[in-house]
Amino acid sequence: MGTDARQAMPPRDARHRVRQAAGRAAYDRDTLYAVLDACPIGHVAFVDSGLPVSIPTAIARLDDRLYMHGSRSSRLYRLMASGASVSVSVCRLDGYVKARSAFHCSMNYRSAVVFGTPERVASRDAPVLLERFTERLIPGSADDFRPALAKELKATALVSMTLDSASVKIRKGDPIDDDEDLDLPHWAGVLPIREVSDPPRPARDLAAGIEPPPRLRAPSPD
Amino acid sequence: MGTDARQAMPPRDARHRVRQAAGRAAYDRDTLYAVLDACPIGHVAFVDSGLPVSIPTAIARLDDRLYMHGSRSSRLYRLMASGASVSVSVCRLDGYVKARSAFHCSMNYRSAVVFGTPERVASRDAPVLLERFTERLIPGSADDFRPALAKELKATALVSMTLDSASVKIRKGDPIDDDEDLDLPHWAGVLPIREVSDPPRPARDLAAGIEPPPRLRAPSPD
Repeated sequence: MGTDARQAMPPRDARHRVRQAAGRAAYDRDTLYAVLDACPIGHVAFVDSGLPVSIPTAIARLDDRLYMHGSRSSRLYRLMASGASVSVSVCRLDGYVKARSAFHCSMNYRSAVVFGTPERVASRDAPVLLERFTERLIPGSADDFRPALAKELKATALVSMTLDSASVKIRKGDPIDDDEDLDLPHWAGVLPIREVSDPPRPARDLAAGIEPPPRLRAPSPD
Repeated sequence: MGTDARQAMPPRDARHRVRQAAGRAAYDRDTLYAVLDACPIGHVAFVDSGLPVSIPTAIARLDDRLYMHGSRSSRLYRLMASGASVSVSVCRLDGYVKARSAFHCSMNYRSAVVFGTPERVASRDAPVLLERFTERLIPGSADDFRPALAKELKATALVSMTLDSASVKIRKGDPIDDDEDLDLPHWAGVLPIREVSDPPRPARDLAAGIEPPPRLRAPSPD
């Protein structure tokens, strides 16, 4: 999987390269947005006592920022609200790529890495943004909640970061074998993977006769 | 999504807690193995010049260790082969959990975080382990490659880490609403998500008459 692993790598010096290569197609905003929007889970890297920690958490890209939220008392959110640097990576797997040689096997994927310092969302802005956050993750749900309670809003930390420092890495399509391998009698191609959503499954404690909101659906599996 | 984000958090002091709570069901080896095996992509956190970086890369759990590989010259693999600490997180999304309140919305997922210091796999062991790595990611492919070249093995860094310091976090099942919300006229339940694999798609440059190996398949979508 040599090729794959290389392709999953960032530029040698990502922080530098991203600024430098703003004109590259892979780094344009629309592509970055599309990758982030396809990935409801981000992996947040932070430094704790000098050691790296990676934690998966729900994310949502709203307008030109990346949002994350959690319990105000949790380690990650206390840290993110304190001005610490983080790096958030996402990756959506689209398939396994089988080449004629193991070396050129790979994966098809869409990935992004965002660098920055999360900022706490002001209390006055939080309710609307939390609502949009939930609606992004569970489209069609927004009109089907009881109102948020003050204590819930107080317990929830919402942070956001700019997307000014980010890189995108995408692989798609066929394996790229060595020319001299093309005539070998080995199969080459892609094993496609995709996400599907099944019909909504009512909670066991749901009262009879309550239907899901008409627009309720899992976010686009694409 | 307050509940969700809290549930995606690690124990307050993960490094400590993991050692402390070895007896907890969620931390048993079989569960950890199952979560890792369901996640072909790991997000590696490392510290670069004091700043956190998170990078997605292909992973494979083989026996009692976690393996990662890549180009020997890449930043990540040079770092991993140099004795740096890393944290690797994985997360497999199983569904969106809609509660009667936005606060109790959540996600169903299986996640793990592994802490440690990758070690370079000795050259004599690398060929067999690389083969197993590829077979783990693309089951059924192993007998259908031309032999690896010495220069390919030389260009590929294979590192592994123990699973001695790891935490697992899993959420499944229905939303957990406040008791006083159970009679509200809002729908509650789960929007299940799952991965499916489509039939192998031959490369455009594949010669006619070459069939995929009989056992070739995408790894278990479960």
